[in-house]
Amino acid sequence: MSTIAVDAMGGDSAPEEVVKGAILAKKEGVDVILSGDENLIKSYLGNEKIPVINYPQVISMDDDPARAIRSNKDSSIIGALNLVKEKKADAVFSAGSTGATLIGAISVLGKIKGVTRPTIASVLPGKEKEVILVDSGANLEVKPKVLYQFAIMGSKLSELLFDIENPRIGLINNGEESSKGRELEKSTFKLLKSSQLNFIGNVEGKDFANSKVDVFVTDGFTGNVVLKTLQGVAKLQQDLISKSLKENLFKPLLVPVKNAISPVKSMLNPNSTNGSYLLGVNGLVIIGHGSSNSEAIKNALLFTSRAVEKRFINKFTEVSSEL
Amino acid sequence: MSTIAVDAMGGDSAPEEVVKGAILAKKEGVDVILSGDENLIKSYLGNEKIPVINYPQVISMDDDPARAIRSNKDSSIIGALNLVKEKKADAVFSAGSTGATLIGAISVLGKIKGVTRPTIASVLPGKEKEVILVDSGANLEVKPKVLYQFAIMGSKLSELLFDIENPRIGLINNGEESSKGRELEKSTFKLLKSSQLNFIGNVEGKDFANSKVDVFVTDGFTGNVVLKTLQGVAKLQQDLISKSLKENLFKPLLVPVKNAISPVKSMLNPNSTNGSYLLGVNGLVIIGHGSSNSEAIKNALLFTSRAVEKRFINKFTEVSSEL
Repeated sequence: MSTIAVDAMGGDSAPEEVVKGAILAKKEGVDVILSGDENLIKSYLGNEKIPVINYPQVISMDDDPARAIRSNKDSSIIGALNLVKEKKADAVFSAGSTGATLIGAISVLGKIKGVTRPTIASVLPGKEKEVILVDSGANLEVKPKVLYQFAIMGSKLSELLFDIENPRIGLINNGEESSKGRELEKSTFKLLKSSQLNFIGNVEGKDFANSKVDVFVTDGFTGNVVLKTLQGVAKLQQDLISKSLKENLFKPLLVPVKNAISPVKSMLNPNSTNGSYLLGVNGLVIIGHGSSNSEAIKNALLFTSRAVEKRFINKFTEVSSEL
Repeated sequence: MSTIAVDAMGGDSAPEEVVKGAILAKKEGVDVILSGDENLIKSYLGNEKIPVINYPQVISMDDDPARAIRSNKDSSIIGALNLVKEKKADAVFSAGSTGATLIGAISVLGKIKGVTRPTIASVLPGKEKEVILVDSGANLEVKPKVLYQFAIMGSKLSELLFDIENPRIGLINNGEESSKGRELEKSTFKLLKSSQLNFIGNVEGKDFANSKVDVFVTDGFTGNVVLKTLQGVAKLQQDLISKSLKENLFKPLLVPVKNAISPVKSMLNPNSTNGSYLLGVNGLVIIGHGSSNSEAIKNALLFTSRAVEKRFINKFTEVSSEL
C-alpha cells in the first residue's frame, strides 16, 4: 500500500481543490498525508480522516523559488518532501510552484549521484502511444552536457513507463539537418550522436503528429513553451471545430459527434493528463498542473500511486550508472 | 498590376511545384518572373509564357546561409532579389532556405534604417481573428533590444494587415508573472513595459486559444518551435478525431461531419496558409513553407500580390521612425 505526501497549498485553487482531490483519491484506495495550513485544510476536510501535518507557509508562483525555499522552512512543499525523506511517505505530489518543488526536492532529498541538474519530464499524447517531453520546464537555460543527461533520463523513463527497449530520442530543433540550431543544439547533437542512446537526430514540433520518436529532448524554456502551445492549439482547434459543427451540422447529429470527439479532447486536456515526473532526485516526486481541479488532483494521485507500486524510483536510480 | 519575382529553385519540391504554382497564379492574374535554372524551369513551363531569368545555382536547406549567399552570386534567390532592387519586380517570393532568403535580402536590398536584425513574422490562426508571431524563425538568438524591435515591427504589421489601432503585444514566456523567463525575457519585459507599445505582459502558448493578444513576440528559435508545434498538434488532433469518428459514428454521418470540420483543418494547415513576412529590409519579401505544393505556392503568390497592391512596404518602412 502506498502513501503519498501531498502539498496541500500548491496550485491555483489550493487548498480547496487539492483537499477535495485527496478525498476522492482516498475513496479509490490511495493513502494520503496532507502538508499545509492545518486549520485551513481541516475546514475543507470535514469528517474525512486524512492525516495533516502543519506546514502553514505558502510559496506562490510569483516567489523566487530558491529564495522562497531558503527562507520558508515551514512551507507546505518542504513538509511533504520531509515525509518522503523520513520514509513516512513513498512519494510527493505538488501542483504548486514547479521551481520551488524542484529546488525543495534537491535540498531535502538530494540529487541522484552523477546528475548535474534534475529535470521535469512530461508525458504527452502521441499518434500511436504517449511520448515523453524532457525538460518540460525546470531548467530554462542549460549546457549541452546537461541536455545530454536529460536525454539519458528521458530514455530511462520511457523504458520504464512503456516497456520500450532503446527508446528513440529526438532533439527538438528548428530543422532536421544536423547543421541546424543554436550552439546548444549543435553541441548536444554531437554528444547524442556519439552516445549509446538510440538518437535519431533533430526533430520538430510537427513530429508530434507522427511516431518518429519516443522522447523529445530540449531545454526547459523551450519545453515549457511546447507544452503550453500544445494545450493552446488543441483547445483552439476544439473551439473552432465546435463552432463549425454548430453552424454546419443538423442539430440532432451534434450529440453523437461530440461524444465521439470527447475522448480526444480529454487526451489533449491538461486536467485529465497525469502529471509530470521530477527526475534526478532521490525520491519519487510528481508535479501536477497549477490549474488542476479536484478531479485532476485525484487522477494525478492515482497516477502517483501506480508509479510507487511499479517501484519506479528504485529502477530509475540505476540510471546514475550511465551518467 | 504587380509583378512578383519568384525563387523557382526554393522549396522541397522545386522547381516543379514552384513553376506549377506560378502558372496557376498567372491564370488568376498575377504577373510573375521566375529566377533559377532556365533549362530546368522551361521543361516544366511547357507553352506557358512566363519570363525566366537564368540564376542556376541552388542554395539548399543544408547549406550555411551566410556562406552560401557569399559564394553563390548566381543563386536563384539572389536573382529574384535583384529584380526587386532593379525595380523590375514589386516583391520577392521564396519557399527556399529561410536563412538564405534573410541574408540575401539584407545583402541585396539592405536593412530599413534603424533595424538591427530583420525578422520573420508569420500570420497564425486565432480564436476570433488571425494573430502574428514574430520572430518565427529568422534569428535564433537575440538581445533584448532586438526582441523589442521585433515587437515594434510586429505591432506595425498587425496594424497594417488587420486595421487594428494599438495592437496588443505579448511576450512569450514560461509563465505570466513578470519574474518569469530567462535573462532575455526579463530584460525585454522591462523594455516593452516602458515603451509606447500596447504591451499586455507575458503570454504562454495556451493563449493561442483565447484572444488576449494580437502579436506574440519571441526569439526565432522559440518562434520556430511554436510554429512547428502548432502544425504538429493540429495534425495530431485531427488524426485522433478522424480515427475516433470512424470508430464511433454511424457511417452515413461521416461525410457531413468531415465537411463541417474541413474548414478548420485548412485554417491550421500550413499548405493553405499564406506565407510569412520578412520584415526590416527595403523591399517586400514573402517566405513560403519549404513543403509547399503548387496549390500552396499559388496561394502564397496571390497573398504576395495583395500585399503589393496594399502598398504594404511603403507603409511599413515608416516604422523606422520608431526604432
